[in-house]
Amino acid sequence: MKRLVAAALISVSLAVSATAQTKRSASPARSRTAIKAVLDAQSAAWNRGDIDGYMDGYARLDTIVFVSGDSVTHGWQTVRDRYQRNYNSREKMGTLTFSNLEFRPLDTNTVTVVGSWHLKRASDEPHGRFTLIFKRTKQGWRIIHDHTSSAD
Amino acid sequence: MKRLVAAALISVSLAVSATAQTKRSASPARSRTAIKAVLDAQSAAWNRGDIDGYMDGYARLDTIVFVSGDSVTHGWQTVRDRYQRNYNSREKMGTLTFSNLEFRPLDTNTVTVVGSWHLKRASDEPHGRFTLIFKRTKQGWRIIHDHTSSAD
Repeated sequence: MKRLVAAALISVSLAVSATAQTKRSASPARSRTAIKAVLDAQSAAWNRGDIDGYMDGYARLDTIVFVSGDSVTHGWQTVRDRYQRNYNSREKMGTLTFSNLEFRPLDTNTVTVVGSWHLKRASDEPHGRFTLIFKRTKQGWRIIHDHTSSAD
Repeated sequence: MKRLVAAALISVSLAVSATAQTKRSASPARSRTAIKAVLDAQSAAWNRGDIDGYMDGYARLDTIVFVSGDSVTHGWQTVRDRYQRNYNSREKMGTLTFSNLEFRPLDTNTVTVVGSWHLKRASDEPHGRFTLIFKRTKQGWRIIHDHTSSAD
């Protein structure tokens, strides 16, 4: 009987160490690096006038949410259409920079990122802050929620 | 030996059903009701000029984040001081209403709430949207992240 208990304990501890292994491979530092790469790809796409490349940072789901000013936009396609409408020329798109990034894991598969956005254009330089909620998906880390505000 | 295996299986299944029980008591509908009550208490406190009562909706932690416009504020006390500074009279506080609430669970203990805020004052009616991240804490559901934006 003692051997059976020992065997049970061993299998439990194997299961626990397998879980620890999974958690290690999803360390906050690794998540940060992967999320930073998504944001870098977004700004690079934006700065070559590629809205669809920029939109790759968002989860391709009807449930994603984009909030700014007093408006809420639901769904990947609608968010894309909004960007396409508001930034329908290279002049309007300008040069986008993200900075002051603060990462905060909510759980293993969810991270919030707060940061600054800055658009350098010929006629003005709009800027402000964003809160992004990133989820780990099969395609990698993707934004499921974006709240963006502008300097007054 | 068989009895020991059976006992082990029973204790595993009890543990599983205890987990299911916990999950049931944390249903999305119950969470929504509890979170809605926190928001109602916040607007009621605001509308009697009670900033500290309003601040009870936020987790009393140095890690909470408040984002608006182009600024980020960290920590319960600093967020409280900002409110106290910006709304230092009943006239400035006006009458606060929350509406258009959209609840979205991120996991059992984390829910995002998007909604509209509207301040009715003698001289103006500022309004906009917010994204709140609520966490279940020992004190109940509390805001750990607030991103608020105003209509342009």
